[in-house]
Amino acid sequence: MSQVIIKDDEVDIVIGALQSDLTSFMEEWRPFFSRFHLIIVQDPDLKGDLKIPEGFNLNLYTKSDIDRVVGPVSNSISFSGYSCRHFGYLMSRKKYIITVDDDCTPARDTNNKITDAVSQHIINLTTPATPFFFNTLYDPYVDGSDFVRGYPFSLRTGVECGLSCGLWLNLADLDAPTQALKPELRNSRYVDMVLTVPARTMLPVSGINIGFNSELVGPALMPAFRLAKEGKLRWETVEDIWSGMCVKVVCDHLKIGVKSGVPYVWRQERGNAVESLKKEWEGVKLMEDVVPFFQGLRLSEGAVTAEDCVGEIASKVKEVLGGNDPMFARAAETMVEWIKLWKRVRAAE
Amino acid sequence: MSQVIIKDDEVDIVIGALQSDLTSFMEEWRPFFSRFHLIIVQDPDLKGDLKIPEGFNLNLYTKSDIDRVVGPVSNSISFSGYSCRHFGYLMSRKKYIITVDDDCTPARDTNNKITDAVSQHIINLTTPATPFFFNTLYDPYVDGSDFVRGYPFSLRTGVECGLSCGLWLNLADLDAPTQALKPELRNSRYVDMVLTVPARTMLPVSGINIGFNSELVGPALMPAFRLAKEGKLRWETVEDIWSGMCVKVVCDHLKIGVKSGVPYVWRQERGNAVESLKKEWEGVKLMEDVVPFFQGLRLSEGAVTAEDCVGEIASKVKEVLGGNDPMFARAAETMVEWIKLWKRVRAAE
Repeated sequence: MSQVIIKDDEVDIVIGALQSDLTSFMEEWRPFFSRFHLIIVQDPDLKGDLKIPEGFNLNLYTKSDIDRVVGPVSNSISFSGYSCRHFGYLMSRKKYIITVDDDCTPARDTNNKITDAVSQHIINLTTPATPFFFNTLYDPYVDGSDFVRGYPFSLRTGVECGLSCGLWLNLADLDAPTQALKPELRNSRYVDMVLTVPARTMLPVSGINIGFNSELVGPALMPAFRLAKEGKLRWETVEDIWSGMCVKVVCDHLKIGVKSGVPYVWRQERGNAVESLKKEWEGVKLMEDVVPFFQGLRLSEGAVTAEDCVGEIASKVKEVLGGNDPMFARAAETMVEWIKLWKRVRAAE
Repeated sequence: MSQVIIKDDEVDIVIGALQSDLTSFMEEWRPFFSRFHLIIVQDPDLKGDLKIPEGFNLNLYTKSDIDRVVGPVSNSISFSGYSCRHFGYLMSRKKYIITVDDDCTPARDTNNKITDAVSQHIINLTTPATPFFFNTLYDPYVDGSDFVRGYPFSLRTGVECGLSCGLWLNLADLDAPTQALKPELRNSRYVDMVLTVPARTMLPVSGINIGFNSELVGPALMPAFRLAKEGKLRWETVEDIWSGMCVKVVCDHLKIGVKSGVPYVWRQERGNAVESLKKEWEGVKLMEDVVPFFQGLRLSEGAVTAEDCVGEIASKVKEVLGGNDPMFARAAETMVEWIKLWKRVRAAE
């Protein structure tokens, strides 16, 4: 494994609490979370106090904090459901943010050894990415690997990594139709590898298990795209898919890398795919417009920060997709509002 | 594993013989080779008769066959060294061609189980590829896998696969400088996975262990790019890297997929990297021109077959790179000549 010096005070672990009792979740993760600062954001729809075990260094944010910071300025930003974690991204001042859903536990590798997802995300984020040419032996910076014959030497220094997308064992992050069609389908294949997703290649970023460099791409991880019937199950949302494509476009434009692969987390069973089908179908259909849009998107040279890029993407969303579905126009507005909020919260310090 | 019906008579295994005694090579591969037809092409520089064990269904081609078929027409095509296998591609009439270097043996997976590279290549070639959107769980057609949430349904049927690039355990396919700098470096990481290399992403295709659909991309696998000091060791050649980029451009243009990952082969030690450095350095330097050229290459709508595409690529090579180094102009000529030869041999039947 590459040698990386992790400064604990450069990392925030952000948890969106969609359930009140976080005891077993926190205890499972204690060996890997306890040395870092945590930000826990309670889903504003979740009533009552959270149950959080002792011994963690954390800030807890609830609906009253959201109302205080965001206030009545916001007409469209919603932090309900999975989007609550975005309030944690907004409040964090750390360079690196790691986040996992509260229905996930640490995964075991092929040797049945428990894995440290936090350290792996930090390794992914602090070693270079190689988006401009594919290395057939995957991440060349892993011990025992290197660049293969034919890989241009001028590209071997790589670029900074902005986003690390982890994966899932047991319940994979499928959509509701797929899970409903194959109710027994579980992911048991642990592929011990991480790679850079090539430039100009879009991917469906899942928010379940990710790490990112907030200084580089933080503003692009937004709670912008909300389905009319958005639910509290992953397959009832596409907000992470949407902001993931925004991040990828931003990274491609700013010459930053996105990695996908290890670390894995173990996803518990939750929800009923058949019940969710009505809600999800809408998101599934919208992808047919969303993917070609992002694939064809090119930003101007004037966009030199993630904030600039998100502003440009919002204009294009309004212009190109706005007429297709009111949800797109709302997403564009929310993106503009989010960038204002991001800047305002930082300027207020 | 996906269920694929392999028709044995649709497959040729093509072996370039760079050593006279193929006994141990053939015996190691017997369990996987014996049901298929083999084409063995003897390196025309290799004197004497080959030693090949009994019990295989094969055609052997030697220098006299090459002279007879190619004749004095060819001024620039050379079948010496690793390029001899291309004569086998030329003579094959099968849909699928699998080839492995004669210094490779079957690899063992993480459970120490011997793997069948031939079947895996055929699976890769006969299941769809997904070059237009990245699936984070890799090949969605493998049993136990599927498309993840956010993957557009309209892209889930995939496209045909033209090329399957396998990998190497033990001696990885590094260039001479890298191997010379890290003489102890061996690849021991068996990543049990295959993925589609996204459209418009270039990769360094290694000729050591590949399978391809000859009907779709056969003409693009050419012995076109020959270093002045080309040797008999992989790191002393770039012909496979060059034709690999041609194939990738052809596949991207014709909307065909290229996969990379399993199967692995075990590569024996051979050669001395430090001794090879003089020869290889030239190839390493040329990559700095070659990669941006292929990355920027776009073909016309009129190019609808691999032959058409190779013709267009040859023109662009001459036009754009011809002035940089005489090797590029020679490669362009050889490509044109190869396509003529490919058509002539087929027309003569």
